Amino acid sequence: MSGQIKYNLDEKDIPTHWYNIMADLPVPLAPPLHPGTGQPVGPDDLAPLFPMALIMQEMSPDRDHEIPDQVRDIYKQWRPSPMFRARRLEAALDTPAKIYYKYEGVSPAGSHKPNTAIPQAYYNKQEGTKRLVTETGAGQWGSSLAYAGALFDLQVDVYMVKVSFQQKPYRKALMETYGARCVASPSNETASGRAILEQDPDSRGSLGIAISEAVEVAAQNEDAKYALGSVLNHVLMHQTVVGMEAIKQLEMAGDYPDVIVGCTGGGSNFAGIAFPFIGNKLRGGQDLRVVAVEPAACPTLTRGQFAYDYGDTGHLTPMVKMHTLGSTFIPPGFHAGGLRYHGMGPLVSHVQELGLIESKAYHQTECFAAGVQFARCEGIVPAPEANHAVKGAIDEALRCKAEGKSETILFNLCGHGHFDMQAYTDYFAGNLVDLDYDEGELAMALAGLPSVAAE
Amino acid sequence: MSGQIKYNLDEKDIPTHWYNIMADLPVPLAPPLHPGTGQPVGPDDLAPLFPMALIMQEMSPDRDHEIPDQVRDIYKQWRPSPMFRARRLEAALDTPAKIYYKYEGVSPAGSHKPNTAIPQAYYNKQEGTKRLVTETGAGQWGSSLAYAGALFDLQVDVYMVKVSFQQKPYRKALMETYGARCVASPSNETASGRAILEQDPDSRGSLGIAISEAVEVAAQNEDAKYALGSVLNHVLMHQTVVGMEAIKQLEMAGDYPDVIVGCTGGGSNFAGIAFPFIGNKLRGGQDLRVVAVEPAACPTLTRGQFAYDYGDTGHLTPMVKMHTLGSTFIPPGFHAGGLRYHGMGPLVSHVQELGLIESKAYHQTECFAAGVQFARCEGIVPAPEANHAVKGAIDEALRCKAEGKSETILFNLCGHGHFDMQAYTDYFAGNLVDLDYDEGELAMALAGLPSVAAE
Repeated sequence: MSGQIKYNLDEKDIPTHWYNIMADLPVPLAPPLHPGTGQPVGPDDLAPLFPMALIMQEMSPDRDHEIPDQVRDIYKQWRPSPMFRARRLEAALDTPAKIYYKYEGVSPAGSHKPNTAIPQAYYNKQEGTKRLVTETGAGQWGSSLAYAGALFDLQVDVYMVKVSFQQKPYRKALMETYGARCVASPSNETASGRAILEQDPDSRGSLGIAISEAVEVAAQNEDAKYALGSVLNHVLMHQTVVGMEAIKQLEMAGDYPDVIVGCTGGGSNFAGIAFPFIGNKLRGGQDLRVVAVEPAACPTLTRGQFAYDYGDTGHLTPMVKMHTLGSTFIPPGFHAGGLRYHGMGPLVSHVQELGLIESKAYHQTECFAAGVQFARCEGIVPAPEANHAVKGAIDEALRCKAEGKSETILFNLCGHGHFDMQAYTDYFAGNLVDLDYDEGELAMALAGLPSVAAE
Repeated sequence: MSGQIKYNLDEKDIPTHWYNIMADLPVPLAPPLHPGTGQPVGPDDLAPLFPMALIMQEMSPDRDHEIPDQVRDIYKQWRPSPMFRARRLEAALDTPAKIYYKYEGVSPAGSHKPNTAIPQAYYNKQEGTKRLVTETGAGQWGSSLAYAGALFDLQVDVYMVKVSFQQKPYRKALMETYGARCVASPSNETASGRAILEQDPDSRGSLGIAISEAVEVAAQNEDAKYALGSVLNHVLMHQTVVGMEAIKQLEMAGDYPDVIVGCTGGGSNFAGIAFPFIGNKLRGGQDLRVVAVEPAACPTLTRGQFAYDYGDTGHLTPMVKMHTLGSTFIPPGFHAGGLRYHGMGPLVSHVQELGLIESKAYHQTECFAAGVQFARCEGIVPAPEANHAVKGAIDEALRCKAEGKSETILFNLCGHGHFDMQAYTDYFAGNLVDLDYDEGELAMALAGLPSVAAE
């Protein structure tokens, strides 16, 4: 029995800068538009929601952004995160492929999310924010911002999508342990929430609805700002520490990926691992395939339209050009709550349009089967979101086996599933079923895209 | 805000040998006695339960035991584990003390338990075992043996103490994810379990009862062996990798502990961190205080008798000389299920009798308060067991503050609490109460100690 191999880096190998892929893109990103006027938004339009340092990062064309010392100091608690070669999984699959995975579940909150929660809290603290308001799906982001809030002495309020709130009861306890407040969304605390509840008192919620609630509260409170855990350019940029570390770790292994796999909800863990490699390629470096894996029940990249749309159900956020299922689309209540978003990060959407990435959708039971196989080989129990990446990587490895190719596969194991064990319980009991969206609902949601979508 | 400091070691710094404190003790350990004859047991008496390699370790007087390459290879998945200096906690306490903690929650199963689960599975596999049977309290040990079983292709059956089974529903799912079977104890599957259920159908269970069930099954099945997660000499020895790594990490920090704190149930995480330092002292090295922290509701070291007693309620195991509350003592159903054992590891008991360690007992609510304070400073949510060590370390730091002393405190943060969040939920809801044992029940259990106890 050969064990897996771990590739460790030193603290000095934690990147000193985040990488901004915008500097290397052959075609610039379409600008965000004001939800009221339909005109491109400027920094001042975003100032009620975000500190200026993050707004500047959001709009910056510069390739490298220095990571503040204090942020890098906190990163050291769990970074550099380990990269493993999954030799036991390779053996179980009997594949000639080499499978590497970067493991972000070593962070205190259990996922890649603190990579951006920490700098977001830092910049907010710098600019005098007292309170951060946010949404969360499965709770990985809410927990991470709660943790960051504890470190920087910021009050944190989290609107958690109701179906996940019910499926993962202990995420709330984790956020409370860090001192945050967690409320099921839609809630009665906001006009956005009340509007949804009036239409449907039993609404299972969605990230789009929870974002409306959080944005509404932040906009109405002087000392509060909003924080988003994915989708936006600066959030994706903060995650690039993952891919930059992976490049160094693969150098240690004397290897380079033929294919990278990541799961996508808003796109942040995917961008985190993939963008530094895509940037290399855009600057003349080695070619590779990049596969985004998403849930078949919320198939943004594979079935969505590339169009301007609102980031939230209540239409309080700017419109951004992205792959979207329509801002009124409410996905079924499958367990990968972090992937239940109607849209996709504009940068991830853009690189798909540029042909730099592929996308693929899976149902949840096949993803859990992959996750269980992975756990029995590698010891780590993946989050339901990460199971999508595991499934994608296994399928690439089986393709290599069929084709007799010894390719190198790298995937991002973005978080552990310790707070998602009800999903595993359901899986073993045979109670986990593949959920599908309603085609009619999707058509209606797409028909409701804002008219600017036509341009 | 100054962040914590992390002390990383290289893979080459993983110890090559386990440390056996028996080689350095001024007085030898009293021998285990056969439950039937009352005579010292020999290797053959233990052969139905354990592979011979572990029996030899159990009885060995040798100081150093080489760690097999394959075990060390698997250790590399999470070892060397990190040691942190808790500068944020120090600041919050406003103490002149330096607080270091070794963090064992980085293992796949979330605690120090894989340090012994892996070698136990390895030696069993070497000697042809097909199936391992064990008990578990809070589930840290059961999960760890399940994980080890997956790596070595061994069937694993776990009898989990019923009150913990109910308090921590997702531990079962974790064990199943690794391919193990988990049954609430007392169960109807064994004569030992049925005997308890006949007396008390609502029995909340205890480690003593669950051990009886597991030992019974192992003894009756040719291809099955028993595995224990604490108490025994070889188990404690496997954990000494923790303390040996900590010695190297403190050298990096240019420091040495004035006091070490660990929580004690059967004694394995405590021995793991403390024994290498106590060994140094016994060989003429630097003096230090060592504090064992236990639950006030199961106060083995602080209230138990030092006497020969059975390791299990059903009297199937050998008798060992230890601090015990009596093998029929069933502790209240507090949340630190890993500390609900009527006895204490013979080696830990012995070093207390030799005056090498102190012991102290706390109630659970004050331990949870300490754990929450720790989580808000350091990011890691401790297991309820580990909260006892956190509380003990905080009290030492506050003593230093009162005395104006800048002492160095080291404690073992033996596991995370991700599967114990119902306890935190209860704590925040004000539903966590301090449980006490019944003095009459304790007196009765002590009165029932076997007569050899008089010698």
